[in-house]
Amino acid sequence: MALKVGKGAEAPPFLVMDVIAAANAREAALPPGAPGVLRMEVGQPSTGAPRGAAEAAIRALQGGAPLGYTEAFGLRPLRERIAGHYREKYGVAVPPSRVAVTVGASGAFPLAFLAAFDVGDRVAMAAPFYPPYANILTALGMVPQVLPCDASTRFQPTVAMLEALDPRPAGLIVASPCNPAGTMLSRDELAAIADWCERNGVRLVSDEIYHGLSYGMEESTAAGCSDSAIVVNSFSKYFSMTGWRIGWMVLPEDLVRPVECLAQNMFISAPHIAQVAAEAAFGCAEELEANKAVYARNRALLLRGLPEAGFDKLAEADGAFYLWADIGHLTNDSVGFAARMLAEAGIAATPGVDFDPARGGRFLRFSYCGAEAAMAEAPGRLRDWLRR
Amino acid sequence: MALKVGKGAEAPPFLVMDVIAAANAREAALPPGAPGVLRMEVGQPSTGAPRGAAEAAIRALQGGAPLGYTEAFGLRPLRERIAGHYREKYGVAVPPSRVAVTVGASGAFPLAFLAAFDVGDRVAMAAPFYPPYANILTALGMVPQVLPCDASTRFQPTVAMLEALDPRPAGLIVASPCNPAGTMLSRDELAAIADWCERNGVRLVSDEIYHGLSYGMEESTAAGCSDSAIVVNSFSKYFSMTGWRIGWMVLPEDLVRPVECLAQNMFISAPHIAQVAAEAAFGCAEELEANKAVYARNRALLLRGLPEAGFDKLAEADGAFYLWADIGHLTNDSVGFAARMLAEAGIAATPGVDFDPARGGRFLRFSYCGAEAAMAEAPGRLRDWLRR
Repeated sequence: MALKVGKGAEAPPFLVMDVIAAANAREAALPPGAPGVLRMEVGQPSTGAPRGAAEAAIRALQGGAPLGYTEAFGLRPLRERIAGHYREKYGVAVPPSRVAVTVGASGAFPLAFLAAFDVGDRVAMAAPFYPPYANILTALGMVPQVLPCDASTRFQPTVAMLEALDPRPAGLIVASPCNPAGTMLSRDELAAIADWCERNGVRLVSDEIYHGLSYGMEESTAAGCSDSAIVVNSFSKYFSMTGWRIGWMVLPEDLVRPVECLAQNMFISAPHIAQVAAEAAFGCAEELEANKAVYARNRALLLRGLPEAGFDKLAEADGAFYLWADIGHLTNDSVGFAARMLAEAGIAATPGVDFDPARGGRFLRFSYCGAEAAMAEAPGRLRDWLRR
Repeated sequence: MALKVGKGAEAPPFLVMDVIAAANAREAALPPGAPGVLRMEVGQPSTGAPRGAAEAAIRALQGGAPLGYTEAFGLRPLRERIAGHYREKYGVAVPPSRVAVTVGASGAFPLAFLAAFDVGDRVAMAAPFYPPYANILTALGMVPQVLPCDASTRFQPTVAMLEALDPRPAGLIVASPCNPAGTMLSRDELAAIADWCERNGVRLVSDEIYHGLSYGMEESTAAGCSDSAIVVNSFSKYFSMTGWRIGWMVLPEDLVRPVECLAQNMFISAPHIAQVAAEAAFGCAEELEANKAVYARNRALLLRGLPEAGFDKLAEADGAFYLWADIGHLTNDSVGFAARMLAEAGIAATPGVDFDPARGGRFLRFSYCGAEAAMAEAPGRLRDWLRR
């Protein structure tokens, strides 16, 4: 008898994974001596954890600690260290009791969504957006409500857009800096959105995973302007620890115990060794700022080079390590364009359809967290390729 | 405006966590020189990862590999090693393409449930059961359907029980050895259940997390008798790697791509360093068998001592590291009983209500994965306490 498959099985892939696979295949097929593939599709630093974090992990392993489950919300010293981070970086008081250590930001989203929303609830987000927001919501039976944004609002939602939503959604996800556009909300804009959410009974989820990676504009945390928002963050980006699968949430009081119960059941705890390393990562500012300086140089290279190469409609590159390029003058088929760019120019980038199903055919995401030499070479290759 | 909280926020806690906290508090409050708390509540080995696994992790860290995201289903060599494990241990051919590395068994269940079931679907399981089965299903809007089991079927479901289900559930979860009862299904029983599931369009989820820990009876894998079952396993128990958060699934062909897409969105990947360590753990049989020998001695101590102490109605202790004690002749309030046992005898065990809300008031779960000296001391303390 044929077995049923759940609706969750219809979750689309996170397409960048397929782009990475294609770039890997292309690299493997290159003849010896051929120019390599320039990797501008990946969303993770090429650097590993900072040395101090790796060394803390090595010490823990050599010391023979059992490294069993921790409490569901994580090791107490790490939660305290994260709370201290809010005091130091933002001047915001966050009690450690509201800090939940999670299995990356990815592990935080299902907990946040299940604690705050129900099946059938609509959750709004700007487009373009990080694809798993919508895919996780859909898998959980919730309904993503897309707010089409463009350069006129720096690809960010506004209170005016929210006011136009009737009925009100159950939730709103914001990200600043955001992926893929790299743009940010100012402190006042974030505060106005948080205030609107509180007044309208809309649960705000603030994805702050790219905090630490901004190039001029200052990041603001929703924890500083809302007592009801859920803040999601991670050690994956600024702290350069993607594969360790370690992130955190700052929870509003009413969701602390519900999320703790959900986490006990769905995760038990975040990886113990990653918690040890993450705590040490806070002491590695020098190395992490050096990583960031590479991104800053890469960004400058591309902001100068890409327009000369023909990619002159770039979103305001406030933060993260992405440039969101409007390529509507070149194509309406970003998937085909990216495939040709990989095959003919040897440059991998992510087609926009992953981030904006409706309009992504005319956008491309360039990531600049890769090697500086690659970023220096990319504009010239792109220019030559477009001229052919 | 008051913000709503989702139905997922009603997930009950995984109560054993609270018991652990109470035992910790009791230990901390003991006067110097007082006899310590005997820890029989924990569901994790007191040993850490085997030495070879920890050393592989140390080597990877010292080598400076970035340890970024892996593919969603994990590192290829680990998937191949797991496939080899099925060949070696069970004589079952499983292609690596059907192996998905997950964030523990905990991370596997949401993926399995979302891929196979829909909101409102009923999923059957024997009671007593591992509490997160029901709590995760409920959080996802699915409906646990409990099959009350007792010693007459070794606390396991039978085809006759399944036949009595009208309408048929969408799924069935089995576990052998199971938590908390420690009992097992024979190969024929598992095959009959798998066959019934296939004939009736019921998706079988086989939790095999305690495989490797059996004391006489041979474990059978659903991968050997069903092409449609989802097998869940983990490095947490036999391999003694709880805090590393690393497990796996063997997926039926029809769920491979759906689960991969869900995993890309919800987890990105399992922890990289844990994947490296897990592959090495397969080469640590000597140490792991020595751990198991401790459990076997602990089990023998308790199977002899507990009946003498007054706990003489124990489930058939085929595997895992638990004894499920019927204490109906002593109390109908296992929570109060366990609290007094901790306070007065200094022995922590888990009240049965966590595992069987309806009948757990007269059951207690003793875990014997702790120290041998504690297991040797426990029966005498219990006997003296019950006599008082």
